[in-house]
Amino acid sequence: MPEYTPAPLIKAAEQFAKLPGIGMKTAHRLAYHVLSLPQESVVEFTSAIALARESVKFCSSCQNFTETVPCPICSDTRRNSRVICVVESPRDVSVFERAGGYNGVYHVLHGLLSPMDGTTPDDIRVKELMQRLSGDIEEVIMATNPTVEGEATASYISRLVKAVGVKTTRLAYGLPAGAALEFADDVTLTKALENRNEI
Amino acid sequence: MPEYTPAPLIKAAEQFAKLPGIGMKTAHRLAYHVLSLPQESVVEFTSAIALARESVKFCSSCQNFTETVPCPICSDTRRNSRVICVVESPRDVSVFERAGGYNGVYHVLHGLLSPMDGTTPDDIRVKELMQRLSGDIEEVIMATNPTVEGEATASYISRLVKAVGVKTTRLAYGLPAGAALEFADDVTLTKALENRNEI
Repeated sequence: MPEYTPAPLIKAAEQFAKLPGIGMKTAHRLAYHVLSLPQESVVEFTSAIALARESVKFCSSCQNFTETVPCPICSDTRRNSRVICVVESPRDVSVFERAGGYNGVYHVLHGLLSPMDGTTPDDIRVKELMQRLSGDIEEVIMATNPTVEGEATASYISRLVKAVGVKTTRLAYGLPAGAALEFADDVTLTKALENRNEI
Repeated sequence: MPEYTPAPLIKAAEQFAKLPGIGMKTAHRLAYHVLSLPQESVVEFTSAIALARESVKFCSSCQNFTETVPCPICSDTRRNSRVICVVESPRDVSVFERAGGYNGVYHVLHGLLSPMDGTTPDDIRVKELMQRLSGDIEEVIMATNPTVEGEATASYISRLVKAVGVKTTRLAYGLPAGAALEFADDVTLTKALENRNEI
């Protein structure tokens, strides 16, 4: 923005531009929009975000975002805690829950292995998954995205899981390859879950 | 989001969804992203936005956003304060300044007349413009977008301005009709400014 633009406005735009999928042009539009809002709306906006960051914790068991530890899914006794579905992110848990048809529990990795980005097994929640396997676990379903990183992560983790004698399966390739799990429709996702194969 | 999703996360997503051009899906992604950031980054984000809203004021003369009153453009003695370019929003000022080729001052309406949305002359800064005309003003350039609301606003204001004996011009239709001023390229914009016509 030109030099006469107020510095706090530029700073706000720069902060918006740090969000994923928001470029400089959109960030400027958002910053200008915020200035035109009533003060109360801005306070509401910033405090909702601050509160979310402060009050939401990781579940001690599945590592999903939660307000209560353990999370509502892990503490739900009607669910089968002997089947663990391993996903990349909390959003993937939402996708499975929305689709329905799955009654086990989850494990959120918070990332995928990626040698290009320098993401090693220590950067994602693999250790926490292995700790859970000391309990009475029947099956681990690898439900990472069908991308290069997703496949590599599934294959790495399945080797570790099989080594401790637990059955490992992978989502069926009903999913269109290269796509993101998040955008799959409910039928495709449920099919992929039903037709999972041992790896 | 399903009912097990932490309430503060849903609230944060709802706040993001209130921003222009951000739908519920993107809002959820942004909310999840915020939770994965370090606490300091979230504080940086929310405080930059709060600070922008608190410290940026309206220029007493041109009504543009500014930290100092009057704003740097209005207080720049090298500029011709006898020519006023009337625009819809502060972003339009940025567009003219980036294009260069204009040496007068501005007047920001902060909106356009729109009977459909119930926006009347009292809702935009028309009164403030008329007050400025009591000074030594040579020309008022109507530089609202070439849309229905933009044309209606230009025509309404130009009638008022001509009534007090000040020359009124409209940006030349070098601009592609129906487009937003913000996306015009510098050459088109400068041409439109050069070929402005008395209305």
